[in-house]
This record gives sequence, structure tokens and C-alpha cells, in this order.
Amino acid sequence: MTHDLIINFTPTGMIPTKDMTPHVPLSVAEIVEDVHQASEIGITMAHLHARDAYTGAPTYKKEVYAKIVEGIRKYAPELVICLSLSGRDFSEIDKRCEPLMLEGHLKPDMGSLTLSSLNFNKTASVNAPDTVVSLATIMKEKGIVPELEAFDIGMINYAKYLERKQIIQAPYYFNLLFGNIACSQANLLHSGVMVNDLPKDSLWSLAGIGNAQLKMNSLSIAVGGGVRVGIEDNIWYDAARTKLATNADLLNRVHLIANANGRSVMSSKDFRVKMHLESGFGKYGRSFK
Amino acid sequence: MTHDLIINFTPTGMIPTKDMTPHVPLSVAEIVEDVHQASEIGITMAHLHARDAYTGAPTYKKEVYAKIVEGIRKYAPELVICLSLSGRDFSEIDKRCEPLMLEGHLKPDMGSLTLSSLNFNKTASVNAPDTVVSLATIMKEKGIVPELEAFDIGMINYAKYLERKQIIQAPYYFNLLFGNIACSQANLLHSGVMVNDLPKDSLWSLAGIGNAQLKMNSLSIAVGGGVRVGIEDNIWYDAARTKLATNADLLNRVHLIANANGRSVMSSKDFRVKMHLESGFGKYGRSFK
Repeated sequence: MTHDLIINFTPTGMIPTKDMTPHVPLSVAEIVEDVHQASEIGITMAHLHARDAYTGAPTYKKEVYAKIVEGIRKYAPELVICLSLSGRDFSEIDKRCEPLMLEGHLKPDMGSLTLSSLNFNKTASVNAPDTVVSLATIMKEKGIVPELEAFDIGMINYAKYLERKQIIQAPYYFNLLFGNIACSQANLLHSGVMVNDLPKDSLWSLAGIGNAQLKMNSLSIAVGGGVRVGIEDNIWYDAARTKLATNADLLNRVHLIANANGRSVMSSKDFRVKMHLESGFGKYGRSFK
Repeated sequence: MTHDLIINFTPTGMIPTKDMTPHVPLSVAEIVEDVHQASEIGITMAHLHARDAYTGAPTYKKEVYAKIVEGIRKYAPELVICLSLSGRDFSEIDKRCEPLMLEGHLKPDMGSLTLSSLNFNKTASVNAPDTVVSLATIMKEKGIVPELEAFDIGMINYAKYLERKQIIQAPYYFNLLFGNIACSQANLLHSGVMVNDLPKDSLWSLAGIGNAQLKMNSLSIAVGGGVRVGIEDNIWYDAARTKLATNADLLNRVHLIANANGRSVMSSKDFRVKMHLESGFGKYGRSFK
């Protein structure tokens, strides 16, 4: 059994609502609870989106993120925490980078960085070049590591451009996402080209939207990659869409498949070492508050 | 010698200025002159961008496009004319579709349709899903055929979605563009995946940005595709950038390589038949005014 499977847990996202699935965690308490449970099942990192307490809509407010980070670190001090800097709903740079302003024991380890503009099903997600560069630059200044998100092959080329300009530096962690309608699709050829194109010193996970989540997770486990898994990308447990998934359901299945493949979860501690992250807040790491 | 090489001539674009190259045609007279000359060298179609007479900046105004179309059709009545509907500078749908409002002998045969949002070097080019659908729908109503522009693999998937929704219908003509920084790159693997992914009944040309133009044109000639060629994508004749190209220079080189490969230009008339376009304004086609 190798302990090299990056499990990037994505419990919430920006899209799922309680109407779509009662299992999506939206409040601070629900998100913290799902991450704690996930942490017991076994995850390497959590990729988190905050929601407004009253409306349930996505929020960029650092006060909300602060409560989530605090709640998680109280019981899972070592866990790698990545906060979303998505521009899907907020395009202004100062809103997008607000979660990066958290300090001390609330400071995130990583921030998400989508590498170009793209279309989702119904909306454009605009990440203009200067926005991408600004977010990466702020992260570099603060010692926060970008989680590089690529939805198509060109975005990997843009990462290489950022590397040449020394705006980002190795080692890298990439999420490669498949199955969005105007992006790369969940098949061997598209994923093969993208993995093949990654810069040196890259760790990576594969993600799939909807039914493609299981496919891309399984494929990645088979070939030595990591997984991005959770309700953010997929609310159903089965392809026939008869059973809504809990985050724990999705994680347990990943563990089952991984174990049968002789692989087990990479610890947050190992991931921190590989990614040159600051140490966690555990027994031998930074003190918690 | 087969007469199956689609040569899509792109003389102007939105980026080149007279400061960058004196050879870029900007005024109506210059564009008409370059298209006439190209037509004598041998092209299948022209993909045109209009510029403001005073500032030289891109314009969506149909009055300017009308003069260009009129000038071209006076001497090259059969030539297939595609007008740009680019959203790079103008995002409002009524501005973007203004060139489609030309009627009668001024009506374009085709309109360009970029299939998703993307980033260029310095700017985002936003083509939200509802914009793409609106432009395609207007073209369908008017009997104007979209020139489908794909900068990355996901955009081809979106074309397939539009096909399933019967918003576009075969036969298709695709421009596949390579070498933009946040898009697919000018190599065999990226171009191979994209050509492989095209829907049935697709004609296609390969385009490359800057130095990649010659590479992608030559590659496409070698494997049976068409070419998109002209100053819009590339102002230099040589890789060392010692000589600025004229549009005629670029076209003559394409013909030289094509002929050595046993291929010659597809006539506009043949392209019209294959693409189910209305007949041209020549001897046996529609009357010219």
C-alpha cells in the first residue's frame, strides 16, 4: 500500500443548494462538520467555498472564511486548507483576494487560481490575464500556494507562461477538471494530453463534473494521480441519479477503489513537505493561536 | 493535383496597426484591394474585420462592412465572404450582430462564431453561452452560415452541444486556432486531438498565431486540411522576424507548399456547394444588384 493518493475534498462549491440536495453543507457549522468527518475518513486537503448565512449564496467575505478555518483547525490542525478565489460571481480583484487577507492561525495554506476565462453551462467565468497575475502575485507575497485549476489544455500553457515570468514557482499542484460543456471532456485523450503537458514538479488531481466525477477519480487512481471529490462537482451517488450522495459516501467510495488499487491517502503532512507549505498547526507544527 | 485546399484569407484582424506593419490593410480601399489581389492568387474565402476610417480601431458598423463587401463583390462576385462578429472589443449582442443585418448583395455568406470565452495575451474575450447561442440563432434565421472558431478542445464540445440543440447544423466549417497563450498550442498532439474531435461533416482549416502560422498551415496542407492565412494572425514573413510580410507574400508561400504537395485551392463555388451556401453573384449565380 502506497500512501500517495492526494484526496482534495470539495464539499460545497458555488452551485449546489439545499433544494438540489439536503446533503450539501452550506453553513459554517455544516462545512466544518463535513470536513471533520472527511478528515476522519481520510483526506489530504479541503477546497472550500463559503456561503452567506442568510441567503446561502456564495460569499467572498473573509469573516465567513475565518469561522470555517477556525472551526476546522480546532480539530484537524494539520489539514491543508485551500480557499476559493473564484470569480464566477465576483469579478473585482479586491473581493476575489479577500480570503487571502486572513492572518495567523486563520491564514489559508492555498488559494484556488483558475488559469484563464472559460464558459460554464450558463455563464462566462471571466479570469482576465491581469486578474490571474494579480492573484498569483498576492499569493506569492503572502506565502500562500496556488491551487492551479485547468479546465482545458491552454490553461496549462498559461501556467508555463506564469512560471517563465516567475509569477509562480515549482512545486505545483494542479486540479484538472473535465466534463464542463465548453471545456475538456472526461475521456482518456483529453486527460492524457493535459497530464502529459504539465510542467515538471507537478502534483495533480483529476476532477469530473456530475457523472464524470467517479470516472475521472477512478481513472486517476489507476494511473497514479490524485482525486478531487465532493458535492461541489457532483451531487449524485449513482450514474442513474437515483440516490443523492453525502460527502462521506463519495469519500468512502474513493477509499474503497484506492485500497483495491493498493493506494492510500497522502497525509496532509506529506503533502505539506512536497508542496513546500508551512507546517500545520499540529503537535510539531505552528502553535494554534 | 486535387482542388480541395480551403484557403481562408484573413487580411486585417483587430490587432495589427500601421505602426506594426505598413502592409496591413485598414481602410475600405486597402482591404478591398488586398482581397482582390488575393482572389487573383487564389483563395476560397475571406474572413474580414472592419476598421474605423479615422482611428483605425476595430468597428462593428455595418456601413463600413457594406462598403467592403460591395467593393469585393464588384470584382470577385463568387468569393465567399465571412464577416467578423468578434466580441473582443464590443460585447453587446446588437453591436456584435450588426454585420449580419446587411441585406441583398451586401449580405455576408458567413459570420464568425467563437464558441466560448477565452483569454488572449492581455485581455479576456468574453463569449458567454447566451451570446454564442444568440449569434448562432440569428445566423440560422438569416441563412448565414457560422464560421466556427475553436481555440481549445472544449469549444468543439460546445459545437456538439449546439448541434444537439439544433442551433447549428451540418455541414460545418471550423477554424482551429493554435498558439494563443491560454489556448491550445501549435503542436501535433493538440491539433490532432482537436481535428479528431470534430463532428461529422466538418470542413476545417488550421491557423497559427505569429510564427505558428506557417507551421500550422504547412501541417494542415500535409494532412488534407485547409489553412487560415493572413496578416490578422501573423505580420512576419520569417521566423527570425527580419521581414514584414505582405498578404500576397503569405498567400504565395501557401500556394507553393500546396502545389508541391499536389494540392490546389478549392474554388469558392465548390466551397459553396459543400457548405450549402447560397450561390455567389457570378455569371450563373444571384444577380449583382
